[in-house]
Amino acid sequence: MADEKLTPQSENFSDWYNQLVLRAELADYAPVRGCMVVRPYGWTLWENMQAGLDRRFKETGHVNAAFPTLIPMSFFEKEKEHVEGFSPELAVVTHGGGKELEEKLAVRPTSETIIGYMYSKWVQSWRDLPILINQWGSVMRWELRTKLFLRTAEFYWQEGHTAHATADEAMEETYRMLDVYADFAETDCAIPVVKGHKSDTERFAGAQMTTGIEAMMQDRKALQSGTSHYFGQNFAEAFEIDFLNKDNELELAYTTSWGMSTRMIGALIMVHGDDQGMKMPPKIAPIQVVIVPIYRKDAEKEKVMAAVDEVFAELKEGGVRVKVDDREGFSPGFKYNDWELRGVPLRLEIGPRDVKKESVALARRDVPGRDGKTFEPRVGLLDTVVDRLDSIQASMFEAAKKFRDDNIHNPKDYDELKEVVQKGWALSWWCESAECEAKVKEDTKATTRVIPLDQPEGEGKCVVCGEKAEKKVYFAKAY
Amino acid sequence: MADEKLTPQSENFSDWYNQLVLRAELADYAPVRGCMVVRPYGWTLWENMQAGLDRRFKETGHVNAAFPTLIPMSFFEKEKEHVEGFSPELAVVTHGGGKELEEKLAVRPTSETIIGYMYSKWVQSWRDLPILINQWGSVMRWELRTKLFLRTAEFYWQEGHTAHATADEAMEETYRMLDVYADFAETDCAIPVVKGHKSDTERFAGAQMTTGIEAMMQDRKALQSGTSHYFGQNFAEAFEIDFLNKDNELELAYTTSWGMSTRMIGALIMVHGDDQGMKMPPKIAPIQVVIVPIYRKDAEKEKVMAAVDEVFAELKEGGVRVKVDDREGFSPGFKYNDWELRGVPLRLEIGPRDVKKESVALARRDVPGRDGKTFEPRVGLLDTVVDRLDSIQASMFEAAKKFRDDNIHNPKDYDELKEVVQKGWALSWWCESAECEAKVKEDTKATTRVIPLDQPEGEGKCVVCGEKAEKKVYFAKAY
Repeated sequence: MADEKLTPQSENFSDWYNQLVLRAELADYAPVRGCMVVRPYGWTLWENMQAGLDRRFKETGHVNAAFPTLIPMSFFEKEKEHVEGFSPELAVVTHGGGKELEEKLAVRPTSETIIGYMYSKWVQSWRDLPILINQWGSVMRWELRTKLFLRTAEFYWQEGHTAHATADEAMEETYRMLDVYADFAETDCAIPVVKGHKSDTERFAGAQMTTGIEAMMQDRKALQSGTSHYFGQNFAEAFEIDFLNKDNELELAYTTSWGMSTRMIGALIMVHGDDQGMKMPPKIAPIQVVIVPIYRKDAEKEKVMAAVDEVFAELKEGGVRVKVDDREGFSPGFKYNDWELRGVPLRLEIGPRDVKKESVALARRDVPGRDGKTFEPRVGLLDTVVDRLDSIQASMFEAAKKFRDDNIHNPKDYDELKEVVQKGWALSWWCESAECEAKVKEDTKATTRVIPLDQPEGEGKCVVCGEKAEKKVYFAKAY
Repeated sequence: MADEKLTPQSENFSDWYNQLVLRAELADYAPVRGCMVVRPYGWTLWENMQAGLDRRFKETGHVNAAFPTLIPMSFFEKEKEHVEGFSPELAVVTHGGGKELEEKLAVRPTSETIIGYMYSKWVQSWRDLPILINQWGSVMRWELRTKLFLRTAEFYWQEGHTAHATADEAMEETYRMLDVYADFAETDCAIPVVKGHKSDTERFAGAQMTTGIEAMMQDRKALQSGTSHYFGQNFAEAFEIDFLNKDNELELAYTTSWGMSTRMIGALIMVHGDDQGMKMPPKIAPIQVVIVPIYRKDAEKEKVMAAVDEVFAELKEGGVRVKVDDREGFSPGFKYNDWELRGVPLRLEIGPRDVKKESVALARRDVPGRDGKTFEPRVGLLDTVVDRLDSIQASMFEAAKKFRDDNIHNPKDYDELKEVVQKGWALSWWCESAECEAKVKEDTKATTRVIPLDQPEGEGKCVVCGEKAEKKVYFAKAY
C-alpha cells in the first residue's frame, strides 16, 4: 500500500529495493529459509516475460518439455567441473514414502545432467539432431542470504538444452540465444545490455565458453541477466550422447545450454524504478493503463462511471491491458500513489469536467508531475493510448541507456580504475590473466563482467599489469 | 516410430497404452524411480490444455502466482486428516548446502498448507477477500508403480486455492470450478464427463466436501479427471486465516482448492485412441493438419512442393497448427502411419494429380480408411479445413459419449451389479454407508466414483443392503 513513502534510492538503495518489492506486492518471503513467494502481480509480470521469451524460442525452432525435479546424486559426479560447482549448493532428498532411499536425490540446481542422460537415450543417428528443447520451471541452489528475485534458494527460470552434430552449429546456437536474450532485454524490458564472453573464472561449471548479457542498475552495479553456454563435447562425453553420422561413424554430439530467470524482475526494478516505486515497461506491464474515476457527488459518479465504462471497453477491445480502480473509500490521490508504486505506465483520469469536455487526462509514469500529464480528446483515444505506450517504452530505454553510457568509464590507469569502479563500470584493456582479475577483485570488489563482443580495433596494455592485452573487458561491482 | 504395430486394445489395453505413450513420443521413463519425462509432443499438448484452462481461470477472476516447492514438515501436522493422507507419500529433504537441516522439508505433494500460511499473512480485513489464486507446477507423491501420465511420483498440474468471507461464496466457487473442468473436458478434450460429489471415503484429506468429474475409458474403467474441494473453515483454523468482517468482528475465512493434472493426457489417450494410435481432439492437438507431399520424380517434386508451400502458408496464416512432413527417404505410407500413431486429426495429401486438378486429399483421423477421405478444391481450402476440424471435434465427442452411455448400466439387483461393473459402470441407489461401499469394493474391486449432481426424482433402495437410499451413485472400477 502507498500510505508510507519508500526509503529514497539515494539514501539506501538496498532498503528502497526491498521495500518496493514487498509493498508493490511483487513477492514475499516464504516460511522456508531462503525461498520466496512470487505474488500475483509479480507472477503476471513473469508470465508476460515468459510470453516474450517463449515466442522467440519457438521462432528459433525450439520446443518445450519437462524433465524431473529430482536428479540422482551420481549424475553430478559425471562431469568433474560441474560437480565441483554445484554440489555445495544442493538440497538433498534422502527419504521417500517413509523409507530411506537407496540413492539420494538432489532437487535440481540445473538440468544438464538429467537432460544429457535422456538425450543419450533419444539420439542414435544424425537424423535425430539437432535437439532443441527448453524447459520452464524452478531450480534450487541452497542460499541463505535472501534478496527477493536476486538471490533465493529457489528461483524460477527457463533452461534451454540443445544437442548438435557439429561444433559450428552448437557455437552458432550459443550466440543465437545470446542475441535472443539481448533482444528481449532491450525490446521488451527496455533494458540496454552488453553482450560478451565471461572470463574463465566466471564460466559456468562444465562449460567451455560462457556468454552473457550484463545490465547496469541505478546504483551502477552490474547484473548478469541471461547466460548462454557452449559445452563442446564435455557433457556428451560424460553422458554418452553419441550418434552415427552420415558416414556411419559414431561421433559425440556438441551441446549448449542457456537460461534466463526471475532475476530479470530484479533488473527491471533496479534499472527503471524511482523513489515513487516501480516503472513497468509497457510491453510487459501486467497493467498498462489504470483508469481512476474522479467524482464527489452521486450525480457526478453516475456520469463519470458511464464514461469510464466506455473508455475501459474501448481500450480492452483494442488489446490494451487496462484496469479500472473503482475502490470505494480511497481518494484519487491515494490511488495515484498506489499505482505509481506499482509502476503502471499510464494513468487515465476521468472527472465530471472531462465528461463534459469529452476528454480525459493521461499521466505517464516515466515523466513525473505536470510535465507528464496531457488532456486528450475521447475521439481517437485508443490510438492516442497506444502511441503513448510506445513512446513510454522508447523513452524508458533511452533513459536507461543514457544512464548506463554516462556511467561507463575508460580509466587511463589502474589508480583511476580503482576509483571509477566505485561509481560505475570501467571498460579497460585486460591481459586475460586470472591474476590481474583477482587483483582487481581484491583491491576494489569489482569483477570482470564480460569481454564485450564489440571490441575496438587493435590491442592495448592491461590496465592492471601493463602487459599486452588483446581485449577490453568491463570491470564492475555486481549483484 | 510407426514401423511396428501396437498391441491391439482388445488384446491388452494396458500394453497398448504403454506402447502408444512411448512410440508417439508423448513421454518417457525418467532415470529417477517413479518419475517421467514429458517429451516435446506431450508437453505441447499439455501447453494447449493449459491455455484452455488458464483462459477459463482468468475469465472467472483468478490470477496465477508461485509458492515454494519445499514445505516445512511441521506444516503438515496442522490439519489432522491432511497429515494422515499425505505423510506416507512425502519425499523429504534432510540436507541443504552440505548441512543437515534443522527442520526437514517436504517436496510439495499439494500446497494447501504453505498457501494457507501465506494467506494468513495477507488477509486482515474483508477488503482482502476473496483471494483467487492458481498455481501451475508439479507435485511429488511417492509412488513406485509407474504408469506414464496416470500414476507417477512427480506429475504436472495446476492447483487453485481460494479464500472467501462466507461459506456460500466458497461453496459457489467449488461448484464453479467443477463446471470449468467439465466444460474444458467436454469442449476442448471431447471427453464427456459426469459431475458429482465424492463419497466420504473418497474425499480429499482435510476437505469437508470433494467434487469431481469422472470419464469413461475404452476399457470401461473410470478415471477421475479433475477435483474441486470445499474446506469450510478447516484450513483457515489450522493456519489462522482470519479477517475483520464489515461489523469489525474477527472471523475465520472459508477456503477451497481445485486441481487438474497431466492425468488428463492419459484420459485423452484412453478415451479416443485406437489400434492405430492416438486421436487428438483438434482444439488441443499440437498439430492439427499434417501435409504429406507425394511425388516420385524430381520434376514432380518441384510442382508438388510449390503447391505444398502455398497450402501451408494459407493454413498457417489462417491460424491452423499445420506441419509439412518433408522428410526424405520415408514413403508416404510410412508417414501416414506415423502421423496416425501421433493422432493428428487431419492429413492433407498433395500429389502431381492434385496439383493438376487444383485439389487436395483430406483424410480424417477419426474415420478410418476410404470413408474418411475426400478430395477438396484448393479454392476455399482454409474454410474447408476449419469446418472439417470442427466436425472432427464434434464427432469425437459424440463417439465418446455414445460409448460411455452404452456402457452405463442400471442393475436391477446386487447380483446384476456385480456382473455389470466387470464390463461398465453401474448407476445405482446407494444408502451412502461406508459398509455398503466397502462390500462392493471387496466383492468386485469397483468403487463409488461420484454421486452425480444430476439425480432422479424421489428415492429408492440401496442396491447393496436394500435400505432407504436418497441418492444414486456410480460404481465402477477405476484408475
